This record gives sequence, C-alpha cells and structure tokens, in this order.
Amino acid sequence: MELLNDEYYMRLALQLANGASGQTGVNPVVGCVVVKDGRILGMGAHLKRGEAHAEVHALNMAGKDAEGATAYVTLEPCSHHGRTPPCCDRLIAEKVARVVVATTDPNRLVAGQGIERLRANGIEVTVGLLQDEARLQNEKFNHHIVTGLPFVTLKTALTLDGRIATRTGHSRWITGPEAREAVHTLRHRNQGIMVGIGTVLADDPELTTRLTVPGVHPVRIVVDSSLRIPPGARVLNDASPTILLTTERADPAKERACIQNPGVTVIRCGDGPSVDLKLAVSELGKREIGSILLEGGGALNGAMLQAGLVNKLMLFYAAKIVGGEGSPSAFAFEGPAEMSSALELERIAIERYGDDWCVTGYPKPSANKATDDGI
Amino acid sequence: MELLNDEYYMRLALQLANGASGQTGVNPVVGCVVVKDGRILGMGAHLKRGEAHAEVHALNMAGKDAEGATAYVTLEPCSHHGRTPPCCDRLIAEKVARVVVATTDPNRLVAGQGIERLRANGIEVTVGLLQDEARLQNEKFNHHIVTGLPFVTLKTALTLDGRIATRTGHSRWITGPEAREAVHTLRHRNQGIMVGIGTVLADDPELTTRLTVPGVHPVRIVVDSSLRIPPGARVLNDASPTILLTTERADPAKERACIQNPGVTVIRCGDGPSVDLKLAVSELGKREIGSILLEGGGALNGAMLQAGLVNKLMLFYAAKIVGGEGSPSAFAFEGPAEMSSALELERIAIERYGDDWCVTGYPKPSANKATDDGI
Repeated sequence: MELLNDEYYMRLALQLANGASGQTGVNPVVGCVVVKDGRILGMGAHLKRGEAHAEVHALNMAGKDAEGATAYVTLEPCSHHGRTPPCCDRLIAEKVARVVVATTDPNRLVAGQGIERLRANGIEVTVGLLQDEARLQNEKFNHHIVTGLPFVTLKTALTLDGRIATRTGHSRWITGPEAREAVHTLRHRNQGIMVGIGTVLADDPELTTRLTVPGVHPVRIVVDSSLRIPPGARVLNDASPTILLTTERADPAKERACIQNPGVTVIRCGDGPSVDLKLAVSELGKREIGSILLEGGGALNGAMLQAGLVNKLMLFYAAKIVGGEGSPSAFAFEGPAEMSSALELERIAIERYGDDWCVTGYPKPSANKATDDGI
Repeated sequence: MELLNDEYYMRLALQLANGASGQTGVNPVVGCVVVKDGRILGMGAHLKRGEAHAEVHALNMAGKDAEGATAYVTLEPCSHHGRTPPCCDRLIAEKVARVVVATTDPNRLVAGQGIERLRANGIEVTVGLLQDEARLQNEKFNHHIVTGLPFVTLKTALTLDGRIATRTGHSRWITGPEAREAVHTLRHRNQGIMVGIGTVLADDPELTTRLTVPGVHPVRIVVDSSLRIPPGARVLNDASPTILLTTERADPAKERACIQNPGVTVIRCGDGPSVDLKLAVSELGKREIGSILLEGGGALNGAMLQAGLVNKLMLFYAAKIVGGEGSPSAFAFEGPAEMSSALELERIAIERYGDDWCVTGYPKPSANKATDDGI
C-alpha cells in the first residue's frame, strides 16, 4: 500500500510529467503538485514548449490557498528568464513555505541557482527525492542540454537469432500488435525518426505516429548519401517536415527538386562518399532536435553503433527463429575479433509486450565515450 | 504468507521431488509428504532408479503413525510390480486414510489404475492439485514415457545479435559465471549431453558437470558422421561413458579403435553422408536416455531444429553485440522465405542470471509435430 508522505506526492508529480512526455519538444518534462494541510491544491505539468511551466499551472490551480503550501517539483525551478518568466519568482510571490525538488538542473552552469534563490527568500527546500527516477524520465533532455547532441534510441524488431528479415528479405511482421503499438508510442516520444534510404526505397514508409489515439509525429530524417530518394516518396509529399541528410557530392539539381516540397530540408554532411554521421547528428542537435528514434536497417544501425552515436537500444524480440544462412542481421558491421571486445550494454531491463519482449540497454561508456555525459 | 492447506503440503512434496531432479535417470521425480493432526510425519522423494519410491521413504519415516494420515504425492502411486513393489499396496497396508495426487501417470495405458486401487480399498483420493506444476517438473520423463524418444533441450549462449562467436571464431566467454553455473546445473539434470564433432575438434571438452558441489555427469553423445574423433580426445579417455553417433559409411577400423576405450559405444545411424538424426535420437531413447542437453554449434543446432527433434530451447543471452558480418549464428540453417513461416516458440519465460538472462521456450506444435505428445 502507498504511504502518504513526501514520496507519495513526488511520485504523482513524476506521473504528471511522464504523461506529457513527447509533447514538450526539446524541453524537459516536469510535473508539480501543490499540497497543504493534507490536501492536494494544485497539479500541473509542462505541456508545450514556450508555454507555462509545471509550477505555474499547479499554482494557478491552487490560487490564493498556495500561501504556506508545499510544492513538489520533479526538476529544480528555473531562475532565469527564458521563453517564460522564472518559476522561482512565482513560487516566492505565492508565499509557498516549502519546495521539494527531485533533481537539480542538469546544465551544470545553472544547477542550484533556482534552489539558492528560493532559500534566499526564506523557503525551505529539500533536494534529491526520487532523483534517479526524475533523471531517467528526462534522459533525452539531459543528454541534449549537456552535449548539444540528440539522444539517439536505436529501436529494432528482431528474431531470437538476431535477424530483421528472412533470407528473402521478408519481414512483415516480426513482432505482434502490442510491440508495434509500443514502437508508435516511442515515435510520439522522440522528436526525430531516422531511417536509411534503403528503407524508403523498399517500403516508401510514412514514418508517422499511428496509435488508437492521435500522437505527435516526429520529424522524418532520411540518411541518403546520393539523394536517391524518388520525387514521389511519401515523406516528401505530405505536410510534415522531413530532413534529408546527404553529402557535398550529391547532385544540386536533385536537392533543388527535393526542397520544392514544403517542409523538406537538405543538410550536407561531409564530402565523403557517405554521410558523416557524427557531423549529421551534431547538425540535428543544433537544429533543436533533442531526441531521435533510429529505425534503421542493419547497415545504418551498425554504422551508428560503430560511430558511438547510439545512446540507448530497445530491441523488440519475437520468439521466432529464421535461420542464420543469408537472413539479414540487425547490426550489419564487422565486429571485433575477441568476445571481450564486443559492444556491451548495461542497465538491462526486459519488458513483455504480448508474445514479444523488449530488451532495453545502454552502451557501456568505455565502448561509447560520446554517451558518457556524466548525467 | 503461505496458508496451511492441501496446497501447502503438495508444494512441499513438489519441492522434495525437484531437489532430486537429475538423479533418477530415466525415472520421474516424485515427492511425498505424510501428514496427520496438523503435523508432518514423513517426507520422501524418489532418489535413485531401482530404489525406493517417494511414498515408501515417507511412510518409513512416519512408521506406525501413518494409520489414518493423509499422503500428498506428486505422481499417481504405482499399481504394478516394476523394479520395486507397488506403492499402492504399501499405502493400503499402512491404512492411510486419504491420498492427494497432483497428476495421474502420463502413460495412458496405466493412468488411473493406482487411483482406482486405492479407492477400491476405501482410501479417499483427490486428484489434480497443482497438476500443471507437477507435469512441468516431469516434462522430460513424460515425453520419453509416451513417445519413447529423449526430451531434447537445446541450450546455447548467444549475443543480442544471435551469434555464438566473433567473426574470428572467438567465443570465451559470452555469458558470465552465473549463466555458466546454470548450464552445469542443466547438465546435472539431463541424462545425455550432445555435441557435434566440430566442438570436440575445436575445444576437446570434457562435457562433465562442474559446480561448487559434485553433480551427476551426463552421458557424452558426439555426432561424428565420419568418426573423425582423435584417439586422444578427452571424452574417449576417462571412465565416464561416451556414445559416438556415426553412419554405416564410417571406417570399421576407426570404430574398433574407439570402442577399445572403456565406456565408449558407437551407434551407426543410417547409410547417408551424415548421421540420420531422427534415427539417432530414437536409438538413444531405446537405450533409456530419456533426456538430452543439446550443446551443439550452429550447424548441429540448426539440423536438430529443422528435423523437429528439439523439445525445448534455453537461450542464454549476454548484453553484447558482435556484428553481423561473418560471425557464426546460433542456428545455421537456411530458414523459411516468409516471416510467417519462421520457427515459433511458445510458453516463453525469461530469467535473469547475473548480467545475462535466459529465454526459455518450446517449439510450437504446428512447427514441430514430434513434440506434440499430448502431455
């Protein structure tokens, strides 16, 4: 049974934040609960970039009763003027007595400043309650704010023997409806979705979020070194934005044809024969794409892994075996000679989805320095 | 909290049986608890083939107090003279008042006869308590008694991408010490261990059970179509038994050399270029090998799977990726063209072992008629 205590309210604040995951763009998710005399007076979450922060929503709901209350906030209240006024000032103005914070701002340059401002104004502040949960909830935001790079989640469906298709290339479907629903939820929760040109040529996918309820669509990102994308491709011909990653070698006439379609952007990454993935990911980060769901085939997945650009893997396994002779691998790259040099994952979690299950893990920092952002 | 009821005692009887798993050879594991007036008077398990059954041990412990008691038995008491006298007669002689049975004898020809005999002698009998657990506990025995074939458990360690080695063939170690300890426990619990000649040539393994405590060693079974095994191979030169499966084409002089070693048997299975695996498994069943742990490489695993001879798979995954270009697969066979024709597993269970985890499943009957024994 749940016990009524600080953790009770902070867990609710985390749930509010979690609900809004996917709709705050490059911003973190944040939840806030305002409590006084055994009653919840206000609840809020940051719902959209540029609009009110969680504390503001919750304090609006509480109204004048907020005086003397405790506010539970999943992220340190901001102390600077961004797109909205600082939340600290609002908490101080409402005469809140106590603020409980799950985690400080991941940006080391501003971390602690909000807490200091509250304390300087006589508010009691407690920091660190359910900190691990709060940081995990914003792992994508934390990575982007610290490194400037998008947080890349490699997602693939695969068989027990690590294949993404049969020897003939047939792949529909590996996993069942529950796993596919989880994947579309991941699309809602990532700002970008990245595939290789091979996927576009083979399947002409929409790469949208399709669920039983409407979801937010990610920006489509296609790795297309020679701009081979056909003019009629779906991702070029609807209203949603699409970014084509290519090289300096790609034909300018092809680029001009592509960008005639509304929402289409071409980014040239390096002058090599294929897209410089490190440069590409850095460019996407600069354009405020803080999170990418990588749904590549074996070649793109392998290249991104080898370049150390994958921060998290979500592997949806189906209880199927297709045999190892000629069926394409989920990670098509020439691996190490020694088993001890294999790319290792840590913090493994396994979750069931119908007949399938998802293995989630993070590349160990030693194998992937780029993810070692200290968060 | 556990509740004191029929299930409480039956669960204890199942635990007694489970403890003896691996030491009863081709026989089932059985546990028995004798209870009267709120006290356990006797506990027993069948410990060794040809020796006392579970009921006899438990009744011996209870002594004269067994009169009027309830006996909880995980398997229907036998009514026929085998290597020991029928347990039914002993239960009747001791004037037990009630017998609770988890499951009937899987052999349809004798199922229910023990229960009938008890009832005919005025003993109250309850059947079916924790039946599923009891049947699962004896899944190997049940399969062998009904089909005459050994129950084959395919065990392999593999990477997230379904590989059993790097591109250079390096494989030590994929999984960690906890998973390897689980594998040696599996050796204790199977009568035979099967590998291909490739494994013997590459590693010269002992194929024994090595744990922190002594275990029972399985019979070594080597699939060696041309009798290429070197005279100095470890499995030929210790006291434990080894069976070499070969073909009519193998050189008789090589066979003579092999069987000079004590404990070595050669079985010729078919006159084709490679061992007829169906015939081989049938021969092993006739020789009272009721369970086999298949620790093959990709080729033998693939051939056994394709022949429908695998009853269960235990796949120990390490959180590692070695890349799909040239690293050997756990199941090296040409699979189906359509994903919908993949070999599917059912009744999936996932268990953690240190940093690794084991996915256990059973080939779906439609894909593997040989396992559809109706148990």
